[in-house]
Amino acid sequence: MATLKDIGVAAGINIVTAFIFFIIFAVLRLQPFNDRVYFSKWYLKGLRSSPASGGFLNLDLRAYLKFLHWMPEALKMPERELIDHAGLDSVVYLRIYLLGLKIFAPIAILAWAVLVPVHWTNHTLELAKQLKNVTASDIDKLSVSNIPLYSKRFATHIVMAYAFTIWTCYMLKKEYEIIANMRLQFVASEARRPDQFTVLVRNVPPDPDETVSELVEHFFLVNHPDHYLTHQVVCNANKLADLVDKRKKLQNWLDYYQLKYSRNNSQIRPMVKLGCLGLCGQKVDAIEHYMAEVEKTSKEIAEERENVVKDQKSIMPASFVSFKTRWAAAVCAQTTQTRNPTEWLTEWAPEPRDVFWPNLAVPYVSLTIRRLAMSVAFFFLTFFFIIPIAFVQSLATIEGIEKVAPFLSVIIEHGFIKSVITGLLSGLVLKLFLIFLPSILMTMSKFEGFTAISLLERRSASRYYIFNLVNVFLANVIAGAAFEQLDSFLNQSPNQIPQTIGVAIPMKATFFITYIMVDGWAGVAGEILMLKPLIIYHLKNAFLVKTEKDREEAMDPGSIGFNTGEPQIQLYFLLGLVYAPVTPMLLPFILVFFALAYVVYRHQIINVYNQEYESAAAFWPDVHGRIITALIISQLLLMGLLVTKRAALAAPFIIALPVITIGFHRFCKGRYEPAFVRYPLQEAMMKDTLERAKEPNLNLKGYLQDAYIHPVFKGGDNDDDDDSVLGKLESEVIIVPTKRQSRRNTPAPSRISGESSPSLAVINGKEV
Amino acid sequence: MATLKDIGVAAGINIVTAFIFFIIFAVLRLQPFNDRVYFSKWYLKGLRSSPASGGFLNLDLRAYLKFLHWMPEALKMPERELIDHAGLDSVVYLRIYLLGLKIFAPIAILAWAVLVPVHWTNHTLELAKQLKNVTASDIDKLSVSNIPLYSKRFATHIVMAYAFTIWTCYMLKKEYEIIANMRLQFVASEARRPDQFTVLVRNVPPDPDETVSELVEHFFLVNHPDHYLTHQVVCNANKLADLVDKRKKLQNWLDYYQLKYSRNNSQIRPMVKLGCLGLCGQKVDAIEHYMAEVEKTSKEIAEERENVVKDQKSIMPASFVSFKTRWAAAVCAQTTQTRNPTEWLTEWAPEPRDVFWPNLAVPYVSLTIRRLAMSVAFFFLTFFFIIPIAFVQSLATIEGIEKVAPFLSVIIEHGFIKSVITGLLSGLVLKLFLIFLPSILMTMSKFEGFTAISLLERRSASRYYIFNLVNVFLANVIAGAAFEQLDSFLNQSPNQIPQTIGVAIPMKATFFITYIMVDGWAGVAGEILMLKPLIIYHLKNAFLVKTEKDREEAMDPGSIGFNTGEPQIQLYFLLGLVYAPVTPMLLPFILVFFALAYVVYRHQIINVYNQEYESAAAFWPDVHGRIITALIISQLLLMGLLVTKRAALAAPFIIALPVITIGFHRFCKGRYEPAFVRYPLQEAMMKDTLERAKEPNLNLKGYLQDAYIHPVFKGGDNDDDDDSVLGKLESEVIIVPTKRQSRRNTPAPSRISGESSPSLAVINGKEV
Repeated sequence: MATLKDIGVAAGINIVTAFIFFIIFAVLRLQPFNDRVYFSKWYLKGLRSSPASGGFLNLDLRAYLKFLHWMPEALKMPERELIDHAGLDSVVYLRIYLLGLKIFAPIAILAWAVLVPVHWTNHTLELAKQLKNVTASDIDKLSVSNIPLYSKRFATHIVMAYAFTIWTCYMLKKEYEIIANMRLQFVASEARRPDQFTVLVRNVPPDPDETVSELVEHFFLVNHPDHYLTHQVVCNANKLADLVDKRKKLQNWLDYYQLKYSRNNSQIRPMVKLGCLGLCGQKVDAIEHYMAEVEKTSKEIAEERENVVKDQKSIMPASFVSFKTRWAAAVCAQTTQTRNPTEWLTEWAPEPRDVFWPNLAVPYVSLTIRRLAMSVAFFFLTFFFIIPIAFVQSLATIEGIEKVAPFLSVIIEHGFIKSVITGLLSGLVLKLFLIFLPSILMTMSKFEGFTAISLLERRSASRYYIFNLVNVFLANVIAGAAFEQLDSFLNQSPNQIPQTIGVAIPMKATFFITYIMVDGWAGVAGEILMLKPLIIYHLKNAFLVKTEKDREEAMDPGSIGFNTGEPQIQLYFLLGLVYAPVTPMLLPFILVFFALAYVVYRHQIINVYNQEYESAAAFWPDVHGRIITALIISQLLLMGLLVTKRAALAAPFIIALPVITIGFHRFCKGRYEPAFVRYPLQEAMMKDTLERAKEPNLNLKGYLQDAYIHPVFKGGDNDDDDDSVLGKLESEVIIVPTKRQSRRNTPAPSRISGESSPSLAVINGKEV
Repeated sequence: MATLKDIGVAAGINIVTAFIFFIIFAVLRLQPFNDRVYFSKWYLKGLRSSPASGGFLNLDLRAYLKFLHWMPEALKMPERELIDHAGLDSVVYLRIYLLGLKIFAPIAILAWAVLVPVHWTNHTLELAKQLKNVTASDIDKLSVSNIPLYSKRFATHIVMAYAFTIWTCYMLKKEYEIIANMRLQFVASEARRPDQFTVLVRNVPPDPDETVSELVEHFFLVNHPDHYLTHQVVCNANKLADLVDKRKKLQNWLDYYQLKYSRNNSQIRPMVKLGCLGLCGQKVDAIEHYMAEVEKTSKEIAEERENVVKDQKSIMPASFVSFKTRWAAAVCAQTTQTRNPTEWLTEWAPEPRDVFWPNLAVPYVSLTIRRLAMSVAFFFLTFFFIIPIAFVQSLATIEGIEKVAPFLSVIIEHGFIKSVITGLLSGLVLKLFLIFLPSILMTMSKFEGFTAISLLERRSASRYYIFNLVNVFLANVIAGAAFEQLDSFLNQSPNQIPQTIGVAIPMKATFFITYIMVDGWAGVAGEILMLKPLIIYHLKNAFLVKTEKDREEAMDPGSIGFNTGEPQIQLYFLLGLVYAPVTPMLLPFILVFFALAYVVYRHQIINVYNQEYESAAAFWPDVHGRIITALIISQLLLMGLLVTKRAALAAPFIIALPVITIGFHRFCKGRYEPAFVRYPLQEAMMKDTLERAKEPNLNLKGYLQDAYIHPVFKGGDNDDDDDSVLGKLESEVIIVPTKRQSRRNTPAPSRISGESSPSLAVINGKEV
């Protein structure tokens, strides 16, 4: 069991690590040649086109002295401006960190003021030490373990549990209200956007006499006679997108060799082997070879493009239908169209850049089966992933290492290294395991058939959260404590489970403290370095970039990554709520995480990240629901703990808490959630009326005509490179398809921009 | 443990009981003076106004000979005609029994053909008898108990479980499809009805400047400009309804004394004491006293009526809003109106006679709290009701009675009486307990704030089902087997629960067989006697009836009673599915129940019941969902049983079944449920277009103006007593408020019809 000293050493290491990251960051960001990596957002918005200071290296020493200056800088921009700058999603995402601070700062103060003295002034552990030679550290003296069985002091914990619950619910309600209003205000103040007028219709039934396009037109002319405006059928252009993607790669190689050739003064034509991985096979001239290949692929693309446009089979039974007014679109999206509820399914069209094209043609029956299959797969993934983790972690303790490799015991028994191992290793093992997970979960979500990237991310996030709950939280609490397998967990009675976990909770406090430091402190500080994009940018810059445009393409600003980021925050909420009444010692560590992450991500959002879509904070109900879940888990575990502490009289007082919390959740769900799911008719009508008054002669049909064309058909026309200001967005939404890992705002003029499947992302050059 | 002989005796008793009921029924129904009780539906529909044969007693002996003649009679009417005659709800309700037959007839045949031989040809129980002196009856020889541990014969059970599941799912899907089509056809072919054009708006926000009426008008004129037609505010007339109800009671007493006086030739004025319950206090002339009282109440009513109409405070923040087209009403009902989703809540207006007026003004916040409170209350009701049941049942066995009253042992040890006690008593005890439950559940539902009687009944039904599941099924299986308390149930591990129950299941087969016979055979046969309405009718006839109208009022045809009837059927589905692979012996008893109940209820629906409202089979998703639940429970229990039979290899094959079943359920939910919840725009548009073509000059406003006026304001105008034909309904829907226990179609001309709260029902004189 780690002592206060161990924790101190680990904290020291992590603080130093974080500082080193910050110093490296401070140095790197000041270099003009890194400008496009650390200020990519400004380039993408067109507000910056060259580094502030000229030259290759920044030699202004004063700049280096203010190496933490970006922190107050990041906090300066007011929220309203930030919404304009980076969109509502980003701002609301930041508010999750703020909410963490708001919830836990008062809880931490209260817990330290009340619970710490109550715990500290007992002598249970000292007595136990003397009598039974039980080992206990100072941290345990601060935790609930130090209170004897049957003690009346548990009354304090009940009062505190109520206080924490009420405070958390109060903050949650306030936040939900604020964000619902922000969302509605954002939607109301938004400029005209195609998705406001458009509905996605899926599962258009086949008709022997009419094409899909005619069918859609007739159906909506009949059933929404005064409102139907136009529609855009969806083509199955997945193969075409693949081809475009292939040409993109070939073009990259061509550029690489051409550059190599031109920079290489020896005038030796670069050669390439055609066999596997370029290691064997015939040697040919690289530039000629890739030129020919690009040519060939271009032809194939042209053919396939013809096919897609002409062949009725490539038309999918789905369509984007646009209406004359927002009111009519809101009506159509919220209503059932026909008898058979699996045909003519209408839903809000996602933003054009948010559409996930490959999934638009999944039929209804297949959807049910896919979702069921993925639920089963996810169940197995969650519950069998636990075994390797538990195994590796049992090795990653001092005792485990000594058992496997006894010869190392001389080294690891050394005080400092022991602290390092205790403080870092088990946290790192866990972290490594989790790196590969998000992409698996994303693939599962894609298979399920969601039609918008935002939905994919939200689904992945909720799965990732459950995974974290089972495999980070529960697995670490239980597998290290009493159980080694899921099996024994299943064999317990329902009211024993909280007890088992409850008992293990205080013992695991030190582990989670080190986890918070590794994952939360050093990890967040590392995020600001942007190491991967930095390396990739410089590699591309060295080998591919020929023009200024190519340089812009080489930037990879990345985005918040809701599907991984949000579940991570939720884990901290869970830890904070669970440990607040048990080991208040843990709370300051969480507070530091929330504060640090808030500053870092605010900086990133202002300067770097380029959000791919705007869902107007549609994810908030998920965030809210997960904090509520954490609250209920913490209450159940506290109850289990109190029962094992023989404070049986106390337990009934706590049983009311989950009931109240569930009641609160249902109230919030009814009160605020509809604002995130549906578009109120009154709002739509207001915007319509306003618009009619302002622009009576608007050509809406022209505006909507091409809004929802598959990105592979659009890339070609998008040649202009003008740095449009915000207001211009509505009049010319230009959609640029791009790979998820390399976003750019302006594709090369000569090429038709590609789309890579399945991790493609459709972004808009001009960020709202 | 009951033997085959015991079962035989019990079956005999119940068959004889049922036959006696049928004979009494045959005699009673032929008497002209009972005509209004046994053919009330025909009177209510106006197709009959006096008994078929004259006189007071029916002396035609031939009629008595054909005493079971009503059975084929009941089956004769084709379904289409029955829909016209009694509404879709009743027809679909009957289909539940038919579905039971369709599911269980093939299952029973298969089980007897395959499982019974497999069970019978073992010798486990015989060996056990010889070796360990275990008692086992012949019934157990037919059940799974007769198969030894580790037997390979359990493969049969797995195959059978799959066969039963697939067959049940197939029938369920077919039935869902049929009923969804019936519903849509019914709605499409329906005559014009006010609720097709009307939406119920609740939680209209308060406005300092405008009255509710103005506010509603302005809101809908702005947000549904082309569609809004008219609206009808809702008044809080609960007090007025109470007064009307009070006068009704006083009037009854007045009638009683007047009749008594006129029939009494001695000319002594009847006297009444004013004290409590008429037992003490001053003696006054009864007729004068009640006349004065009626007078007084009439004045109060007039005053209150003025108040309600004039006082703005009695206007509730709710309104019935009517639109020009069905399309517009469908749109408004399915969409969110404003930012704040707790204001301007729109939903389909229930049929006028289905509206539950007292709940129209419950505010939103209160709704959440009420529902939460009722969930908690229901939890306690369900889990603490179990204690008295288990206690009384432990007394109601031979051993229990002997323990409490040893002196009775001479009598009850007698063979026949022993069989009677074993066969009847424990079932009867249970039945008695359940009699008081529905009204408690109904009150709970009312408290929850549902606005339609059909919703109230559906909510009560689902609660009643859960109650039955826990307290009839589980309590009888477990309390008698291994556990006496809920507590020990909670202390088991999740995978032990199915095992515990699974083991107990075969042992309880005989109990459930007797339960089916008492509750299902004799009980259903008793239903046809209509004993309570018969007695009440004759009492009223003797003491209150003065005119032909009064006689009509005295009829109490009753209705199906979805809230109690459907959960009862569901219990049989559960028993059948659980016992099909375990003790196939039980299946024929269930088949008899379904067949008998189908005939009896078909007869009742044709001749007696008067359905209070028409929800167009909106309850089917509930029915479907509960059969699915029963299926999953049966699969889990079979799995538990196989595990305890050491057929552990078999269990994994069964674990796929619940997953498949859940997948099937989700498919059905997505595919068919929307037809029961929402009104497709295409259908609405079709009906609108048709109507516009047929009746271009229809005065819709006049038609809708008074459709949703509170019943207390309507009774007065409804003087005409014409026997309208079906087609007339749409042109003059006349709403007559009435007490649940005494419906009538035409109130007395001089009185304003009363409404009793809270069990009031609003019915329509002219049944669709």
